[in-house]
Amino acid sequence: MSTTRIYNFAAGPAVLPEPALEEAQRDLLALPGVGMSVLEISHRSKAFEAIIGGCEAAIRQLAGIPEHYHVLFLPGGATLQFSMVPLNLLPAGSWADYVVTGSWSEKAVKEAKKVGAVNVAFTGKADNYVRVPKAGEMKLTPGAAYVHLTTNETIHGVEYHALPDVGDAVIVADTSSHMFSRPLDVTRYGAIYAGAQKNLGPAGVTLVIIRDDLVKKAAESRAYATLPVMLQYGAHAAEKSLYNTPPAFAIYLMGLAMKWLVSIGGLSAIETINERKAGKLYAEIDRTGFYRGHAAKESRSRMNVTFRLPTEDLEAQFVKEAKAAGMDGLKGHRSVGGLRASIYNAFPEKGVDVLVDFMKEFERKNG
Amino acid sequence: MSTTRIYNFAAGPAVLPEPALEEAQRDLLALPGVGMSVLEISHRSKAFEAIIGGCEAAIRQLAGIPEHYHVLFLPGGATLQFSMVPLNLLPAGSWADYVVTGSWSEKAVKEAKKVGAVNVAFTGKADNYVRVPKAGEMKLTPGAAYVHLTTNETIHGVEYHALPDVGDAVIVADTSSHMFSRPLDVTRYGAIYAGAQKNLGPAGVTLVIIRDDLVKKAAESRAYATLPVMLQYGAHAAEKSLYNTPPAFAIYLMGLAMKWLVSIGGLSAIETINERKAGKLYAEIDRTGFYRGHAAKESRSRMNVTFRLPTEDLEAQFVKEAKAAGMDGLKGHRSVGGLRASIYNAFPEKGVDVLVDFMKEFERKNG
Repeated sequence: MSTTRIYNFAAGPAVLPEPALEEAQRDLLALPGVGMSVLEISHRSKAFEAIIGGCEAAIRQLAGIPEHYHVLFLPGGATLQFSMVPLNLLPAGSWADYVVTGSWSEKAVKEAKKVGAVNVAFTGKADNYVRVPKAGEMKLTPGAAYVHLTTNETIHGVEYHALPDVGDAVIVADTSSHMFSRPLDVTRYGAIYAGAQKNLGPAGVTLVIIRDDLVKKAAESRAYATLPVMLQYGAHAAEKSLYNTPPAFAIYLMGLAMKWLVSIGGLSAIETINERKAGKLYAEIDRTGFYRGHAAKESRSRMNVTFRLPTEDLEAQFVKEAKAAGMDGLKGHRSVGGLRASIYNAFPEKGVDVLVDFMKEFERKNG
Repeated sequence: MSTTRIYNFAAGPAVLPEPALEEAQRDLLALPGVGMSVLEISHRSKAFEAIIGGCEAAIRQLAGIPEHYHVLFLPGGATLQFSMVPLNLLPAGSWADYVVTGSWSEKAVKEAKKVGAVNVAFTGKADNYVRVPKAGEMKLTPGAAYVHLTTNETIHGVEYHALPDVGDAVIVADTSSHMFSRPLDVTRYGAIYAGAQKNLGPAGVTLVIIRDDLVKKAAESRAYATLPVMLQYGAHAAEKSLYNTPPAFAIYLMGLAMKWLVSIGGLSAIETINERKAGKLYAEIDRTGFYRGHAAKESRSRMNVTFRLPTEDLEAQFVKEAKAAGMDGLKGHRSVGGLRASIYNAFPEKGVDVLVDFMKEFERKNG
């Protein structure tokens, strides 16, 4: 780690792999053999075809994504997907089941309701979102167009440790904040979407993995012809994300980050590392009772570790002293309060160790 | 110019100012005083507030943009604006006038027709788009919600040298491919939008400058409540482009490019340079008749210089030999054929001189 860099615990945009940043820096004025910056080349050029194709290939390799799924790179973040999902996949006269486990699923519901009928199959709002539903708790409605899950809630630090049983329903999942942090069986989903800026790359591009039959079905609906072309999955799938000029640099850097993920051993390897990193933090949280985790143990996120201290004053002091010690981004979201340590794939384990030591010392002085 | 860089005549994404690229390269692993890359920092951080605020300030300074216009940084390119403009500004029961001067205005019409009634006030299609309308040629309809212009057509190389007289109508303009290439009186427009990747910055962000009363009027319409939040100008204006995570790096680099533009003297200074660069190329095109410009003289674009050679074989040979001589991106779009030299703000005048010399030599050998 370069001496000028600090530990960045931010929830997103978040820390990126240093080898990816270093390669981007080296080539920023001219890609080798191209003579132009990746920021300047045509998205129709052979050089960019190789970049976007290489990024897609790495993604397909990492999760073994079959050919009947499209891998798309779209603008607008997960928030635009909150609308694109129902606009494409929720036909008139049908409805969708939404499982609400935090702020992000709430937002997904809000946008879906603008489009069509939504059944909230479960909500954890009453407890301020500390857990995912238990088996049998979801009131799924047979025949729903899809079941929407937010598989990791960045703000509340609530994560599904396993996909719930939804029978034959089509799962559509917002995986933004834990995408590729563990092995992923894409075939259990109809569609997956993830804003890049947490685990995949920089802000500005959204990864969408969607089954071809769903894209086709959307295109056959009556409403599809009046949908803005930029909101049609079919237009992006037909043009392989090049219907218009894509966010080229964000795709390039995602490709470098995915190359790094492949190089360290892929999803199983990163899961082992992520389990270890999160394990160290939760062990410290549970050690004495001075710290209290927000999420229920069975729903604790490996990516976003949310916890409280005995008082809000101590929480403010913790954030301030941690920042002075080279750890930034630890303040929790106002809807949960307290602290949040976001420790995505690229977050170095050394930074977790430094935080754990800091927590011990902080408790010793203030406990 | 670094020796490894070539002359990039691409229509977009296109060449960026080298001082901007060099600063981005220098700071790519850690912004000074921040300790994180701009690719990693939270969009809610003070460091990013300074970046997006600085970019907006430079833009306001360059064109003297009054406070009652919002300056927004949005995803999805001009193509998403083709939809957002009518979805926000074309109420049910009203209609909009569209002036069609090339492929991009055609696409704008196509998307607008999905939303509401469109009156094509002029189209240059019959001549394959060689010019903008003459005074009196536009069939504007009094009471239209707005008049839409594409003020520079990238593919056909057709540009308005002055804004046409539209009476009291509200002008909405796609200025993507000549934005900030010359002085701009924002107050003559209701809204201006421009994909960044030609004259402003890298791909991935779209600049929208829009009058506050139009944003307010859109928000009061009945249909607004069901519009996806990402397509609501009001949501972006209220949150100063931070409703969700914005394309942070593209905004950062646009800020650096705008700083460069201010540093060389702003819009009047760049206009002088652009006039001179385009003048040299058109003079060579007109010198003997070997080359033929596509656009009519009074509508010639200073940004995209489109021209033909006596045969398609010679055109292919020209592109190939120019590339070997370090000039890339000169092949014209298939709908026009021939050659296109895109010479945006950041394209170095030296590159124009090199191309002119090459044109003379090519004619000498093949004329």
